[in-house]
Amino acid sequence: MTPIKDKIILGIDPGTTIMGYGLLHIADNKPQMLAMGVLELKKYSTHYLKLQKIYERVISIIDSYLPDELAIEAPFYGKNVQSMLKLGRAQGVAMAAALSRDIPICEYAPLKIKMSITGNGQASKEQVADMLKRMLHIKDEMMLPQLDATDGLAAAYCHYLQSTKPETHKDYKNWHDFIAKHPDKVKGL
Amino acid sequence: MTPIKDKIILGIDPGTTIMGYGLLHIADNKPQMLAMGVLELKKYSTHYLKLQKIYERVISIIDSYLPDELAIEAPFYGKNVQSMLKLGRAQGVAMAAALSRDIPICEYAPLKIKMSITGNGQASKEQVADMLKRMLHIKDEMMLPQLDATDGLAAAYCHYLQSTKPETHKDYKNWHDFIAKHPDKVKGL
Repeated sequence: MTPIKDKIILGIDPGTTIMGYGLLHIADNKPQMLAMGVLELKKYSTHYLKLQKIYERVISIIDSYLPDELAIEAPFYGKNVQSMLKLGRAQGVAMAAALSRDIPICEYAPLKIKMSITGNGQASKEQVADMLKRMLHIKDEMMLPQLDATDGLAAAYCHYLQSTKPETHKDYKNWHDFIAKHPDKVKGL
Repeated sequence: MTPIKDKIILGIDPGTTIMGYGLLHIADNKPQMLAMGVLELKKYSTHYLKLQKIYERVISIIDSYLPDELAIEAPFYGKNVQSMLKLGRAQGVAMAAALSRDIPICEYAPLKIKMSITGNGQASKEQVADMLKRMLHIKDEMMLPQLDATDGLAAAYCHYLQSTKPETHKDYKNWHDFIAKHPDKVKGL
């Protein structure tokens, strides 16, 4: 287990009607919620205006909080090709904002995020929000009515858990892979 | 028919393995090819690196040529949701580059582009390239072996044709729409 000294993780749940985001500050391996919010996109009339607002908001969050990493919630399957193209564009502009600032990106499937936070891949948004509230000691007044904000924070928290968890045998394909990654564990012949 | 005095159009055909682009300068309603090129993406190992390269190249083209408008080739249907998500991301980062510079975007389906240039929506890439070469008087040595470059230029040329073509009855849904768009054509009562 690698202790994380000081790091800021931005978590984003991009969508075409609402984007949720949350920021985690990790100091001495203790995560603390810095901020969370949503960007409502319904009010913008055109697809491009929505994309522009996503880009601008992500750039503005990055420039305000200077996150070290971006964790993004990314479903791998969708209803149809049309909705996946639109979702891909929303993800693409959010990613472009991070890439323009050289911030590395990790993406997590919704099931993975729910699983890592609640232990149940089928947990509801309310359950995820409740668990985050307790684990991060978030005060009632800081919680937003929109659960999309906690979805963004959940992506950041999932990324934090991933980067602190000890390596398991699942991280290696086979013994050759283990040896290749840990040459120091091989006794000299 | 509105004559276009002076305008630069950037055309892009974004993809996940190669991106083609072309620049058209319209002066006194005469289009002239300024530049065209491709960005090979196969050599980049990760999906994010490919997206970052697309973003950086589009920003660099915009900052070099200062285009007024972006025309993008955008298929509306794909093989599967996975490929559409990836294509959406590639389009998204290219769009983010334009949106970050406040450049308006227009998108055209491949069939529409082929139709407007060759008169045949099923034309081959070679036929489109050949037609563009003749219409824009592009010299042999300026033509690139990659037809993706002419695909980008074709999007720009299609956008130019769209913005110069006279209005037809197809541009109006009905008489009410025509009257709403041309109040000056309505005789006072």
